[in-house]
Amino acid sequence: MTAQLIRGLAAIVGEGHVLVDADVRRSYEVDWTGRFIGSSPCVVRPGSSDEVAAVIALCRVAGTAIVAQGGNTGLVGGGVPLGGEVVVSLRRLDWIGEVDELAGQISVGAGATLAAVQDAAAAHGWRYAVDFGARGSATIGGTIATNAGGINVLRYGGTREQVVGIEAVLGSGYRVRRMTGLVKDNTGFHLPSILCGSEGTLGLVTAAVLRLVPAPEHRVTALVGFATIHDLVAAVGVVRGACDRLDAAEIMLRDGMELVRDCFGATIALPRPWPAALLLEASGTADVVDALAGALESAPAVGDVVVADTSVRRAELWRLRDEHTAAINTLGVPHKFDVTVPRSRLADVMAEIPSVVGAVAPHARTWQFGHVGDGNIHINVTGGAGDGLDDMLDETVYRWVCGQGGCISAEHGIGTAKARWLHLDRSTDEIAAMRALRGAWDPDGILNPAVLVPLG
Amino acid sequence: MTAQLIRGLAAIVGEGHVLVDADVRRSYEVDWTGRFIGSSPCVVRPGSSDEVAAVIALCRVAGTAIVAQGGNTGLVGGGVPLGGEVVVSLRRLDWIGEVDELAGQISVGAGATLAAVQDAAAAHGWRYAVDFGARGSATIGGTIATNAGGINVLRYGGTREQVVGIEAVLGSGYRVRRMTGLVKDNTGFHLPSILCGSEGTLGLVTAAVLRLVPAPEHRVTALVGFATIHDLVAAVGVVRGACDRLDAAEIMLRDGMELVRDCFGATIALPRPWPAALLLEASGTADVVDALAGALESAPAVGDVVVADTSVRRAELWRLRDEHTAAINTLGVPHKFDVTVPRSRLADVMAEIPSVVGAVAPHARTWQFGHVGDGNIHINVTGGAGDGLDDMLDETVYRWVCGQGGCISAEHGIGTAKARWLHLDRSTDEIAAMRALRGAWDPDGILNPAVLVPLG
Repeated sequence: MTAQLIRGLAAIVGEGHVLVDADVRRSYEVDWTGRFIGSSPCVVRPGSSDEVAAVIALCRVAGTAIVAQGGNTGLVGGGVPLGGEVVVSLRRLDWIGEVDELAGQISVGAGATLAAVQDAAAAHGWRYAVDFGARGSATIGGTIATNAGGINVLRYGGTREQVVGIEAVLGSGYRVRRMTGLVKDNTGFHLPSILCGSEGTLGLVTAAVLRLVPAPEHRVTALVGFATIHDLVAAVGVVRGACDRLDAAEIMLRDGMELVRDCFGATIALPRPWPAALLLEASGTADVVDALAGALESAPAVGDVVVADTSVRRAELWRLRDEHTAAINTLGVPHKFDVTVPRSRLADVMAEIPSVVGAVAPHARTWQFGHVGDGNIHINVTGGAGDGLDDMLDETVYRWVCGQGGCISAEHGIGTAKARWLHLDRSTDEIAAMRALRGAWDPDGILNPAVLVPLG
Repeated sequence: MTAQLIRGLAAIVGEGHVLVDADVRRSYEVDWTGRFIGSSPCVVRPGSSDEVAAVIALCRVAGTAIVAQGGNTGLVGGGVPLGGEVVVSLRRLDWIGEVDELAGQISVGAGATLAAVQDAAAAHGWRYAVDFGARGSATIGGTIATNAGGINVLRYGGTREQVVGIEAVLGSGYRVRRMTGLVKDNTGFHLPSILCGSEGTLGLVTAAVLRLVPAPEHRVTALVGFATIHDLVAAVGVVRGACDRLDAAEIMLRDGMELVRDCFGATIALPRPWPAALLLEASGTADVVDALAGALESAPAVGDVVVADTSVRRAELWRLRDEHTAAINTLGVPHKFDVTVPRSRLADVMAEIPSVVGAVAPHARTWQFGHVGDGNIHINVTGGAGDGLDDMLDETVYRWVCGQGGCISAEHGIGTAKARWLHLDRSTDEIAAMRALRGAWDPDGILNPAVLVPLG
C-alpha cells in the first residue's frame, strides 16, 4: 500500500522529489526545537500548484493523511508528522514575483522564505511588515497557515492583515485562486482570512499576494529602564498615544537580559540595572526620532533611556531581545507558553505568573518577555518540570490565563501542542463550528487530522 | 402553519415584537431604493441574543427561511424577504458599551447605528473609522454582514479590519461569542473575518467589539481639478506615496458635480470647470495640513486646488461628493454597479465604461464617481435601460470588468442582485467551496437562501 502510494506520488512530482530515505526524511519529521518528533512514510516535494492538487487527489483516494510543511519553524507541533502522515513540503514553490509598485503588493509562492520576500520588497523601496526571528527559514505559506505575528503587529497587524490574495488547494480538492490583489473585494466569503491561521487543516496554500508598506526613511530604537512592570506597561500606553508611528514595543526582564548577556556577551546598554526594560522602535520620516523622544518625555516613571538611530547601534539593542529564545534554550528544552491578556490585566498577569507556575512546579524558573504593546507575553519555564508535571503546568497556566480574559495562543497557533487545551479557551459550540468548517473543506479528513480541532 | 409559527415567535420575543400587519411590515419588505420588493409573513424583533437563538431554533424546526435585517440600507437586495422569508430585525439590539480606553475598542450590539457608534467613540476622543452616507440608519450588524466599506477604507481598511470580537448565532444553532477584544488571538479559525461579509448566510451577528483609532486633532480637505481622469489617477498615486495620513481620495466627474449643483445648489468650489476633480482628506497632528499641501505640490498635472481646514468649509467640499447618489436618483431609479479594478487599469476603465455601457444601452447616461484611492468606482446608469436590457447591461459590464482584472462587488456585496453573475467573477470551485461552508454552518439552509451563493 505504502509502496504503491510512493510510486503514485513519484509519478506526480518526479522520483527525486519523494524522499523515502530515513536520514533524508529526518529533518522533516522533527521540529527545530526537538520537542515534536514524528515519522512519515515519505516526504513529497511538489513543484507547482498543479502537483499539489494531484498529490491531494491521490492521498484522498488512498485515504492517507497529509501534514503540510514550510520551513518547519513552527512552535506548536503543527507541521510534523506525529501521526505517521505523509509530509508535503511546499518549499520548492519559492518563486517571488515582481513588486507591483502601483498597488504596493508582491506575489509570491508559498515556499519563499520570509527573509527572501522582505529582501525582494526592500530592493524596490518597500517593506513586508511581518518580521520575526526565524525569517531565514520560515516560509510565507507557513506564516499564512499559522497567521504568524512577530514584532511589528503593533503597527501593521499580523499576517492575516497582509494577505490580499491567495491560491490554495482545499482538502476537498477544490482549487481556489484569488490573486488579483484587489483590496476592496466583496464577492463572497473572504478566502485569505479563512485560510490564514487554519494550520493546514482546510487547504494547502500554494501562493499569495502580500501587502507592502513603503520602506521607512528613518528608524529609531530606544531601550528604556523601569522600576516595575506596572510602570512599564503604563508608559507603553502613553507612548502609543503620543507616537502613532510605533512599530514595536517589547518587554524584557532583568533576569532574561542578564542571561542573554552571560550566554552571548550581549550588551545591556542601560547605565544602571533595571528590573524591567522596554524596547521601542518607531519609523517614518526624519521627525520620527523627535516624535519618539517627545513621547517618552510625556510618559511617567521612565528610568534611563538609551536611543539608537544607526543600524549598528539599533542592532545591538535588538540583539538583547532577539537572543532571549536561544539563551533560554541553553538551559534545556523549555516549556513554552504564548498568551495574550487584556491590557488592563497585563502588568498583574506578568507579576503573578511566577507564583502560578511555582504552585505547580516549585523548582522551576519562569522567564517572561514579549510583545508588550499587543498584550502578548512569551512565558518560558525551565527546570523542575517533568513529563507528568508538564500537563499539570499547561492546564494550570492556561486555565488561569483564560480566567484573566486572555487566550491560550497569541501568535503560535494551536497545533498539536495545545489542541487538548482548546476547550479551556473556546466554547463547545465554537469548537463544533470549527470542526464543521473542517468537514466542509476537508470532507475526508486528510489534512493535519491531529491539529487544532482533532478529527475522529 | 404560519399562524403556529407566529404564535411560537411571539412566545419568544413578545407579541408586540412580531409585526404581522401589512402596513407595519411594509418598510421591512422593501429596500430604501425601491428596487427590491418582497413580502414576509411577519417581522420578528428579538431583544437579546438569547431570543435570536430561540428564533433560529424555532425556524429550523419549522423549516422556515430567515432574512436578517439591520437598517435596511443595503444596495444589493440582501436584506429584504424576496422569497417570502421571515424578517428578523436586529435593530432592538442597539446597546452601546463603554469605550475601553486602554484597548481603544468599543463593544456594541448589532442594532446600534453606525452614527451612534461614531458619536459614542467621539465623545471619548476616539473615532470609529468606518463611515459612509447611510450612517444614520445603517446598523453595525449590517455593516459587518456586508463588510461595509465607505470613504476611509484607504487608510483604515473596511469593516472586516475593525471587528476584533464577535457574537453570533449560526444557522446550525451554534452560538459563538468571542468578545475579549484580544487583537493577537490565534486560537482557531477567525470567526469575525468569516462572518464579516457573509451577508446573513452563515449566522446572525448579535454583537461585536470594534477597533477605534484616536480622533485626529486636525483634518484637512482639498478639492483638486484635473484635465483628464488619467492625470487624476496618476496624481493619487503620488499623493498617497507622499502623505501617509490620507483618509480618503474620491473622484468626481464634471457632469456629476454639475448635476449635484443643479439639483441641490451645492457649490463647485474650483475657480474654473475641470473635467475631473479629486477630493482628498487627510488627518492627524497639525502638520498634516502642510503634509497634504506638500504632497499635492509634488504631484504632476495638478489644476486648481481648493483647501479647507474648517469643519464648515470641509463640509461644503464633501457635500459635492455626498449628494451624488441623491442627485442621480432624481433622474429615476438608476442601474448601479460597484466595482473594483486594479490601479493600473483604473483610468482606462473609467474612460472606456461609457462606451461599454453605450454599446448595450445607446440612450443611457453613465455617471461615475467613487473611491479612486481604492480603485473602487460606482457606475450609475440612468435612462435608456429597460427590464430586458438590464440583464444584458449587467452581464456586459461585469464580464468586461472581470476581463480587466476587476471584481463585480467592491463594497456592496453580492446579495440577490449579483448572485446570478458571481460565476463571471468566481470559479466553479470557489463557488462550490463557499456553498460547502454555508452547508457546514447552516445545514438546514434557512439563512438568506437566495443570497450570495443561492441554495437548492
